Amino acid sequence: MSNIYSDVLNRLSPYTPGEQLNDKRYIKLNTNENPYPPSPKVIEAIKKGANSGLRLYPDPESIDLIETLADFHGVGKENIFVSNGSDELLAFAFNAFYANKDVAFPEITYSFYPVYCSLYNCKARIVPMKDGYMIDKKALSEMDCPIIVANPNAPTGELLESEYILSLLKRNRDNLVLVDEAYIDFAKQQSMVPYVLDNENLLVVKTFSKSYCLAGMRIGYAIGSKLLIDALKTIKNCFNSYPLDRLAQISAKEAVTDQTYYNKINQMVIDTRERTKTALEQIGCIVLPSKSNFIFVSFPGFDSYAIYTKFRDKGILIRQFSYISDYVRISIGTDSDMDILINLAKEIMKK
Amino acid sequence: MSNIYSDVLNRLSPYTPGEQLNDKRYIKLNTNENPYPPSPKVIEAIKKGANSGLRLYPDPESIDLIETLADFHGVGKENIFVSNGSDELLAFAFNAFYANKDVAFPEITYSFYPVYCSLYNCKARIVPMKDGYMIDKKALSEMDCPIIVANPNAPTGELLESEYILSLLKRNRDNLVLVDEAYIDFAKQQSMVPYVLDNENLLVVKTFSKSYCLAGMRIGYAIGSKLLIDALKTIKNCFNSYPLDRLAQISAKEAVTDQTYYNKINQMVIDTRERTKTALEQIGCIVLPSKSNFIFVSFPGFDSYAIYTKFRDKGILIRQFSYISDYVRISIGTDSDMDILINLAKEIMKK
Repeated sequence: MSNIYSDVLNRLSPYTPGEQLNDKRYIKLNTNENPYPPSPKVIEAIKKGANSGLRLYPDPESIDLIETLADFHGVGKENIFVSNGSDELLAFAFNAFYANKDVAFPEITYSFYPVYCSLYNCKARIVPMKDGYMIDKKALSEMDCPIIVANPNAPTGELLESEYILSLLKRNRDNLVLVDEAYIDFAKQQSMVPYVLDNENLLVVKTFSKSYCLAGMRIGYAIGSKLLIDALKTIKNCFNSYPLDRLAQISAKEAVTDQTYYNKINQMVIDTRERTKTALEQIGCIVLPSKSNFIFVSFPGFDSYAIYTKFRDKGILIRQFSYISDYVRISIGTDSDMDILINLAKEIMKK
Repeated sequence: MSNIYSDVLNRLSPYTPGEQLNDKRYIKLNTNENPYPPSPKVIEAIKKGANSGLRLYPDPESIDLIETLADFHGVGKENIFVSNGSDELLAFAFNAFYANKDVAFPEITYSFYPVYCSLYNCKARIVPMKDGYMIDKKALSEMDCPIIVANPNAPTGELLESEYILSLLKRNRDNLVLVDEAYIDFAKQQSMVPYVLDNENLLVVKTFSKSYCLAGMRIGYAIGSKLLIDALKTIKNCFNSYPLDRLAQISAKEAVTDQTYYNKINQMVIDTRERTKTALEQIGCIVLPSKSNFIFVSFPGFDSYAIYTKFRDKGILIRQFSYISDYVRISIGTDSDMDILINLAKEIMKK
C-alpha cells in the first residue's frame, strides 16, 4: 500500500503551529494574535453578511476587497492578490517563483519557509545568523538567487531598513525578492509597498491576522508588479477558484476602512511592547529590539523549555522553539496580561 | 524577467469557474448552488460566532467539526479531513497520491481534474465517453492506475452503482480511487461512505457547497482510511496550518446537526429536477437522467452557445462549456425559477 502515496508526500516534514488550546484558563501569548478585538464595524458587517446569500459562491476574484486594498495602498487593482491567510499566499509564491530553484533566507526566521522548500522542491540556501540572532545582511546580499525575508523578522523582531532591501532588489533583478510584512504595522515605518511599482521583482506579503485582529478569518494579501500578481492568479486558478469565503472578504474590506480604530489599538500594542521590554530588562532578562507585536527574550540561567513550562504551569502560553535553547518568543497582550507575565518573570528571576 | 517564474508556472492552464455576476437581474442556474438558504440555525450560529474571538486563530485541526462529521457518518475522527472547499481537498489529494503519476478519469467530468494534472505533473489517462455522454465503465475498469470519478458525474448527472465502484477498488488495491461525491445528496443512495473502512484505497470527497447551501463559506471534507487521511494532513500542514476560518467551522458543524431542514429542501430540489426534466422533454429537449442538482440538456436545432446566449439575454445564467457543442448544464433552482426557464425554453423550441 505504501506506493499509494506520491513521491512528493514521501519527502515532506510539516510545519508545527503554536498550540491552540481552547482551555480558557490560559493567557495566550504564543501565536502573535492581537490582544484587542476586531473593529466593531467588522463584527457588524459580518453579522449583516450572515444571510441567505451564503448559499452562493463568493466572488472568485474578491474584487470589492481588492479595490479597497488598492485604494488604501495607492496601487492598481492589478497589483493586489488576496488569499486564505498569508500562508496560502506564501505557498502560492513558492510554487510560482521558487519551485525547483534555490531560495535564500536567514537561518532563524519564519519556520514555514523551509517547509515550503520541501513541498516545492526548492534548495534552501540558509544564511547563518550573526552576533546571536541578527540577520547577516552582508551574507544575504551576496546570494545570487531568489530571496525571502520576514520584515520585521520572526521570532526575533529585527527590522531591516528599506535601503537595504532596495539593495537586494537591485542585485537580484531576475529573481523574486519576497518581503513578508506580517508584522510591519507594529514597526510604523519601512514598509516596502511604496517600491513595488518601480521594482518588478518585489513582492510584499501582508496579513489580516495580526494588526487587523482577524486571525480567525484567514486573510492575507500581496502587493507587487502585474507580472508577479498574474503569476499568483494563475497558481490560484489551478488550485482553488474560491479561497476566500464571503464573510472573510466582507470582514477584511470593513477592517481596511476603519484605520482610526486600528491605529489606536496597534499603538497600544507598541506602547505595551516597549513597557514590557523595559520591565523585563530591569530584572535581568535580555530582550532583543523588536519592531513587532512580540518580543524575543532570554532569561539568563534558564533554558527556553524551562521558561516555557514555568509560564505554562502558571497559566501563560508563550512560544518555545525546539531549535532555540536560550530565547523564547512572547506575544504582546493587553497591559494586564503583561503585568501578570512581568510579575511571574520577577518570581522566576529571583530564584 | 521571464525566468522569475518557476518551471511549474510555465506549464499551467487554469480552470475557469462559472460566472459569478453580481448583477441581481439574473436567475443564476450556472454554478449548481442550492436555491434555498442555509438552515436558520446556521445563520444564527454564525452571528453568535461573530465576536471578539475572531482575533484568535481557528482550531487548526477543526476538531469540533470533525467529531460532528465522524458521528454523522459513523466513522472515527481519524477518518475525516476538512478543507477550504472540496477543490482545495482535491488539490491536496492530487499532490499526496497522484503527483508525477498517471491518473485515469472520464473524458467529460469535472474540468478541474485535468488542471490538477498540470499543476501536479500527472499524466491524464482520459477515458472517452460512450454512447454520447455516458461513462465507459468497461474501459475505466481496465485502467491499472489511480482513478478519479465524480459520482454523480458532472456535468452529465450520471450515477455509477456502488457495486461498480467496489469492482474498481478491488482491481486497484495499490492505487487511490477517489470518488468525488459533491452531488451525492441529490441521488439519495449509492454513497461510497459505508465502504471506506474496508477499502484502504478509497477516498470519498464531499462538500458543503451544494446540499448544505454553503457555497459562500467554502467547506469540503473527505472520508477515508487513516492511511489516506494522514497523508492529506501532511500535505495540509506543509501548505497552510489554518485553512478553515472560525465561522466556516461553526457553520458546517451547525449544518450537519440540522438534517431535518436539509432533507426537506434537498427533496424539493429533487422533485423540481424531475418536474423540469419532464417539462423540457415534452417540448423536444433531450435531458440525460440526472441524480444531481442539475440537468444536462440538449435543445435540438441549437448549439450550446446559442442556447446559453438566448437564456442569458432573458436574464437566466446557465453553464456552457466551450468543449461541448450540443448540451448545456442547467442548475436546479426554485420552482418559480424553473417555471421561468421552462417558459423560455418553450419559446425557443417553438421557433
